[in-house]
Parts: sequence; C-alpha cells; structure tokens
Amino acid sequence: MPVNSRLVTFHAGDSGFWRIISNKPYVGAAWPEAKRLEVSMGEPPNQKSIWQLTGVTSNERYVSRIEKNTLSAKQAPLGRPTADRAALIPIRKTAAWWAMTQDERLAIFAESHNAIGLKFLPAIARRLHHCRDLDTHQPFDFLTWFDYSAADENAFEDLVSALRQTPEWKFVDWEIDIRLRRE
Amino acid sequence: MPVNSRLVTFHAGDSGFWRIISNKPYVGAAWPEAKRLEVSMGEPPNQKSIWQLTGVTSNERYVSRIEKNTLSAKQAPLGRPTADRAALIPIRKTAAWWAMTQDERLAIFAESHNAIGLKFLPAIARRLHHCRDLDTHQPFDFLTWFDYSAADENAFEDLVSALRQTPEWKFVDWEIDIRLRRE
Repeated sequence: MPVNSRLVTFHAGDSGFWRIISNKPYVGAAWPEAKRLEVSMGEPPNQKSIWQLTGVTSNERYVSRIEKNTLSAKQAPLGRPTADRAALIPIRKTAAWWAMTQDERLAIFAESHNAIGLKFLPAIARRLHHCRDLDTHQPFDFLTWFDYSAADENAFEDLVSALRQTPEWKFVDWEIDIRLRRE
Repeated sequence: MPVNSRLVTFHAGDSGFWRIISNKPYVGAAWPEAKRLEVSMGEPPNQKSIWQLTGVTSNERYVSRIEKNTLSAKQAPLGRPTADRAALIPIRKTAAWWAMTQDERLAIFAESHNAIGLKFLPAIARRLHHCRDLDTHQPFDFLTWFDYSAADENAFEDLVSALRQTPEWKFVDWEIDIRLRRE
C-alpha cells in the first residue's frame, strides 16, 4: 500500500537540515535530546535517528469559512528564505478533551485559538500534523511546526505564551517545545 | 511502535466469521468479490486475504452534546446475539467535501445525518471507522459497519436509502455496499 501523501516525519539525530538549539518540556516528561532535525514529506527515508515523530496534515476541524478566508489572506508559506528559526511543538491532549463532542471542543477552541494565531500572521508560518489516527500508537496527538525570522523571535514567544493561557491549554497534558535554527 | 488500539481491519477471503452475500457498488467502480469476512480489532492478524480494508474509530466530528446524549440513550452495542445480519459500507467523499471548512461540512451533515440515524436506533447498531489519516493511502475515507437482526432488514434498507437522499451524499463519489450473514 503506498504511503499517505500527507504524511510528514520529523527525524532527529546527528544529521539534518535544522540544528536543535533547545528541547524543553512545557508540561510532562522530557523528550530525548538530539543535535539535528530533518523534515520528510511522504515516504519516510530509511534513516538512522534518535527519535522520529510522524503526523499527517488533514482537513481543518475548528476553522469556519469566515476565519479561513481571513487566515488565508494573511498567512505566509513555510520555507521563506528569511525564516531561519523554527519550532516543533508536540502536544498531547487529555482523555477529557477527546471525550467531548464537537460543539464542546469548538466552544473551547474558538474562544481564542484562531484569533491568537491571526495576530501573528504573516510573521509566523505554521503547519499542523495530526497523529491520533495513524496505524501506530503515537506519543503525541499533534505536532505543530512553525518557521519565522530571527527578527520575529519575540513575536513567537508571545504567540506560544498567549496560547498557553487559553482555556484550551487546560486539556494539554504533555507538551514539548523544541527550537531550531537553519545552520 | 505498537499498533493503534483503535485500529480495525476487515479481511475478506475464503474464511471468516461472516458470509458475504452481496457486494455491489452504489456509486463508482466495483470492489473485488470474496466469500467471507473477518473483523479484527487492534493488531491485524497475518492472514491471507483477497482484500483488506482498515480504519480507526476516533472522536466524533459532527455530533453535538444534545445529539450525543439522545443517541447514547437509544443506541445498542454491536454483536447482539440476534444481530445475524451485517453491512460494511466503504465510502469516499469528493475533494470538494474535504476542502470545505468545519462549519460548511457541519451545515450539510447536520441537516439530516444524525436525525436519520436516530430513527433506526436501537434496531441498527453502527460503528464508524476513519481511513483518511492512516500512514498508508487508503481507497476509501470511511468504513461503516452495521449489524441488525433479520427482522430489521427492511429498516436497514430504509436507513441507507434515506441517507443516500441527503445533500451530504452529493459529495460521495465511491460507495460499495457489502451485505453479510452470520453463518
């Protein structure tokens, strides 16, 4: 069976395009240290790694058409030549989050998540990967990948800090914050 | 990496708990014939098959708390001793469906899907499996498994017929209807 074309694998080890400059748990246990990170789309390369995390990009679950049009008009793509900073933030949400119905999750999410994200466009580019419905059991539910310029490092701190103060974050029970540089 | 505990595999071949009595496309190309079907939870057995279809049960995407409470109060579990009829209905939805935002999909879905399902509880038991976000590319987006008694066969025809007349079904571009008996 061919691989899902929306699959993305993050390989950490001694080689890779990005240099890992920090790796800290924000909630929960620490995650293994490594020197560099490679991001692979589609078929994962048969590559030695210290750890690998995999997710798939998918349809959006909590964005309305009005929000999507506003976000699409402002957002920038990943991989801009100026974007030499990146962050990989794996999170896991609690069983209580997953037991809620769509309207309950949306009410908590919509209160702030999209509005906060919008404030930091186009400076911060972002891609969300879902891990929960893969064939294999995954340690995290989501992997979010961000890139931005050195000049926007403070803006990125403001973004993650604002998200962590939302009601949604009460349902995050494991979060690792990995920062990287393109060098 | 251990297998996702919510993974379910449908194996069709010469052996299996269920006898396949019909296998017809409702929209799109035909699907290979086989005699029997086995349903495996979690780790897929290393078993010879004519075809296999895999999905994962997951959090609900379009059910509100009010609907969920009403559905939960009426629904029956799969595997009742009287449920000697079953159906496996793999469907694929169009790219236009997946490009819609959550509110757009919900508006089309909520118009009728949950209300129709509710009318046939507890006679028809059902489990939905998602295929789109697995590691491997899957032919269908969803696999729905139903079981019911011989006395409820007409009710099941009414259920699938009512669903196929909804606006949601304009976004189904491949659908196979497989019927089975426990014998």
